Amino acid sequence: MEQKDMIYEGKAKKVFNTDNPEIVIVDYKDDATAFNGLKKGTIAGKGAINNRMTNYLMKVLEEQGVPTHLVKEIDDRRTAVKKVDIVPLEVIIRNRAAGSFSKRLGIPEGSDLKCSTLEFSYKDDDLGDPLINSYMAKAIGAATQEEIDLISQYAFKVNDVLKEFFAGIGIELIDFKLEFGKTADGTIVLADEISPDTCRFWDMKTGEKLDKDRFRRDLGDPEGAYKEVFARLGFGA
Amino acid sequence: MEQKDMIYEGKAKKVFNTDNPEIVIVDYKDDATAFNGLKKGTIAGKGAINNRMTNYLMKVLEEQGVPTHLVKEIDDRRTAVKKVDIVPLEVIIRNRAAGSFSKRLGIPEGSDLKCSTLEFSYKDDDLGDPLINSYMAKAIGAATQEEIDLISQYAFKVNDVLKEFFAGIGIELIDFKLEFGKTADGTIVLADEISPDTCRFWDMKTGEKLDKDRFRRDLGDPEGAYKEVFARLGFGA
Ligand SMILES: Nc1ncnc2c1ncn2[C@@H]1O[C@H](COP(=O)(O)OP(=O)(O)O)[C@@H](O)[C@H]1O
Ligand SMILES: Nc1ncnc2c1ncn2[C@@H]1O[C@H](COP(=O)(O)OP(=O)(O)O)[C@@H](O)[C@H]1O
Ligand SMILES: [Mg+2]
Ligand SMILES: [Mg+2]
Repeated sequence: MEQKDMIYEGKAKKVFNTDNPEIVIVDYKDDATAFNGLKKGTIAGKGAINNRMTNYLMKVLEEQGVPTHLVKEIDDRRTAVKKVDIVPLEVIIRNRAAGSFSKRLGIPEGSDLKCSTLEFSYKDDDLGDPLINSYMAKAIGAATQEEIDLISQYAFKVNDVLKEFFAGIGIELIDFKLEFGKTADGTIVLADEISPDTCRFWDMKTGEKLDKDRFRRDLGDPEGAYKEVFARLGFGA
Repeated sequence: MEQKDMIYEGKAKKVFNTDNPEIVIVDYKDDATAFNGLKKGTIAGKGAINNRMTNYLMKVLEEQGVPTHLVKEIDDRRTAVKKVDIVPLEVIIRNRAAGSFSKRLGIPEGSDLKCSTLEFSYKDDDLGDPLINSYMAKAIGAATQEEIDLISQYAFKVNDVLKEFFAGIGIELIDFKLEFGKTADGTIVLADEISPDTCRFWDMKTGEKLDKDRFRRDLGDPEGAYKEVFARLGFGA
């Protein structure tokens, strides 16, 4: 497989065509952004960690019956994935109040929820990725009811699998963001990444934040946090 | 039935206890507010129009199988209703893009939707009545799944009935806000009001706005708009 022209440069990754029209290569950068791009910086080593962590977790999820875009890790920063049309919804699952949920509802971070929640944000940087619900997603043509049902089912399955998985390495999975896409044959698969950029990870003993909030909120040593999660996954320091 | 102490003064209505603990009296004011109380004013005659229009429409809805809080109209501004615990969700149905929906999604007012939508706003003035979804409503204990299902079913039924009803008098029902409550015996009923304060009414021929947007947006003669809808309902000028 040969890497061809870059088709997209996002905030955290570049996407390249390959000689196979159904496959693209994702190249993970060390760039970090927050607040819809307003805050910019670098987290040394992040690209390689997020690439390998995403692939590791996607393999775990595949084994548990969640189809993903993963094809093959190429090197420490690059992975071949099925090219998909991204469903323009960020799918957020929460197990505990934090971030925008806490702000929106005036509920302190860390508060218990009576149930885990699923949220859709409409993927549109200019609009600030606004929260919408499934009726709204259908009304604007962002997804069909069938797509919404399948995506919701997969997202809760991902939560079940990852919550247990991370608990096994002393990490509470507070919340996370997923993206789904449609492959050439119309199959819905989990796409994008699963990493400290897209999850909130709290150390179960100390409550320490082991995720991008260390960058967003200037809590210090984001590199160390990413490395810590990576090490607990069994990837030596 | 005797009117007793005032238990609540809201932006548009006062609520009084009666000698019957299961019944309260709602007293409609001419006061108008917008943007979460930031804009204040008066629409002469609004209280009487909203009181009588609400009661008229609630009777229509009762006949179509939607239970409401209505007990008895007392005079032109006051109505006896079943005292309920208001479910802390504003229930919004939309048949066409307008207002906050248009703003949130960058869609011009008046745009067609692929389907009618239902939204829940968490009733909390300090938080600005934020949009939430049904998972969030359950997670914070605002409602149970059973309540959400019943409220959604009633809300869409209200839409079916009112859309047709208003079409019959040359008015397109663009969107509206409902509140539901639980009576002493736990029954969920439609509460609050249905009026140009809580609905967007557009004249089907001219597109003219016949609702509170005339006040919100300083479009002129809100009194005339309220009177026009009232007259089309068969209440002589
Ligand atoms: N399998 C895939 N096929 C095509 N595009 C993908 C796939 N997986 C993720 N993407 C998209 O590639 C981009 C990844 O770059 P990223 O830096 O995360 O972008 P952004 O700044 O938009 O978040 C995102 O727009 C994401 O939706
Ligand atoms: N049947 C009812 N029993 C008790 N409270 C009700 C009933 N119907 C409506 N209410 C509540 O009474 C108040 C009506 O006053 P209003 O001026 O609309 O208040 P607000 O400024 O909070 O919108 C609202 O808080 C509404 O939720
Ligand atoms: Mg991204
Ligand atoms: Mg009100």
